[in-house]
Amino acid sequence: MRRGRRPAGEDTRASIVAAAREEFAAKGYDAVSMRGVARAAGVDPGLIRHYFDGKGELFAASLVPAGADPQALAGRFAEGGIEGLGERLARTVLAVWDAPDGQVQLRLVLSGLLSADGHVQELPRYLQRTVFDQVAALLPREVAARRVGLVASQVLGVLVARHLLRLEPVASMSPDELVRSIAPTIQRYLEGVDEGLAPGPPEEQNSSHGEY
Amino acid sequence: MRRGRRPAGEDTRASIVAAAREEFAAKGYDAVSMRGVARAAGVDPGLIRHYFDGKGELFAASLVPAGADPQALAGRFAEGGIEGLGERLARTVLAVWDAPDGQVQLRLVLSGLLSADGHVQELPRYLQRTVFDQVAALLPREVAARRVGLVASQVLGVLVARHLLRLEPVASMSPDELVRSIAPTIQRYLEGVDEGLAPGPPEEQNSSHGEY
Repeated sequence: MRRGRRPAGEDTRASIVAAAREEFAAKGYDAVSMRGVARAAGVDPGLIRHYFDGKGELFAASLVPAGADPQALAGRFAEGGIEGLGERLARTVLAVWDAPDGQVQLRLVLSGLLSADGHVQELPRYLQRTVFDQVAALLPREVAARRVGLVASQVLGVLVARHLLRLEPVASMSPDELVRSIAPTIQRYLEGVDEGLAPGPPEEQNSSHGEY
Repeated sequence: MRRGRRPAGEDTRASIVAAAREEFAAKGYDAVSMRGVARAAGVDPGLIRHYFDGKGELFAASLVPAGADPQALAGRFAEGGIEGLGERLARTVLAVWDAPDGQVQLRLVLSGLLSADGHVQELPRYLQRTVFDQVAALLPREVAARRVGLVASQVLGVLVARHLLRLEPVASMSPDELVRSIAPTIQRYLEGVDEGLAPGPPEEQNSSHGEY
């Protein structure tokens, strides 16, 4: 099935990603070449370059379980606006990574992060472009990056605790129970509840309002 | 300095840990042997076994930056009780891992997690014994594990975002600013604020209160 050239299209892209996923998982980031992935996918190396800017981007695309499109998922949970976003986001992320091949992808992420050559800066950039920007668009510009970063810190931590460290009871809590626990945190980060900066302009402690 | 046998004592333990740290960092978990560490530390392999139950425990001990004793640190931040614990805990963890060799240790953790042979279950056990249990002792027994797990999920996530993914702006926020952001989350987990279990029994949506 995997042998031979294919016409360009989503099908081709998917089979490239599938091949890349297997290559990265088997060999680690550093040892994988675009040429090797092309061979495994049965496509021309030029075709890979048509879809992916480089090995880093190919790596990033291979990090999500097959069938999950982070951009589309983020679009969907961002669609409803800020209200309830914490819960929608938590539920989506857990569903994606609780999926059978989720753990393989997480290990991939980490072996990429451990690789010495630093291409994995692609990962934050990819997350930024596909997911973070869609959440940030709902937030005030000057606090968006900070709030999204804090959201990411809670989401990443749950994934690491649940799927890599397999820390109990986080590892075996039901998705519902986990969502109930972390969604309020995510929501608070999104709304800046703990910012300790608002209310009022920063560094303007001398301006009183009302009773002067 | 590292050559030759030494008398047993804290000094010996420290030099074993230092040697193990270098070995794990250079070779990855799987390729390290107790014998190799003994050789690097200039001690008898039996002496390593005197201090450490196995390679897993030795690995766990090598995960904290030199000089940081997780058990003592956890003891100190737990000492003051629940009040303000979120902030003390966040501040301590950031101080330990922001230290110059903190990132080396984090990479160690991850290469251990990625190793195939599963000995790294030692890590959760070690965390449990040295840190989690001291926090859990401050909490009601039936919710302690769950709350501590959630705390760990936020703490781990900040470390991964800040030091491994180097996700901005989390990577370059000052410790103070980060503490201000995540300490309330940790405190809420400790106090069970978002447990959604209390108050009242779940699934009893038919009980109205007041105006029937």
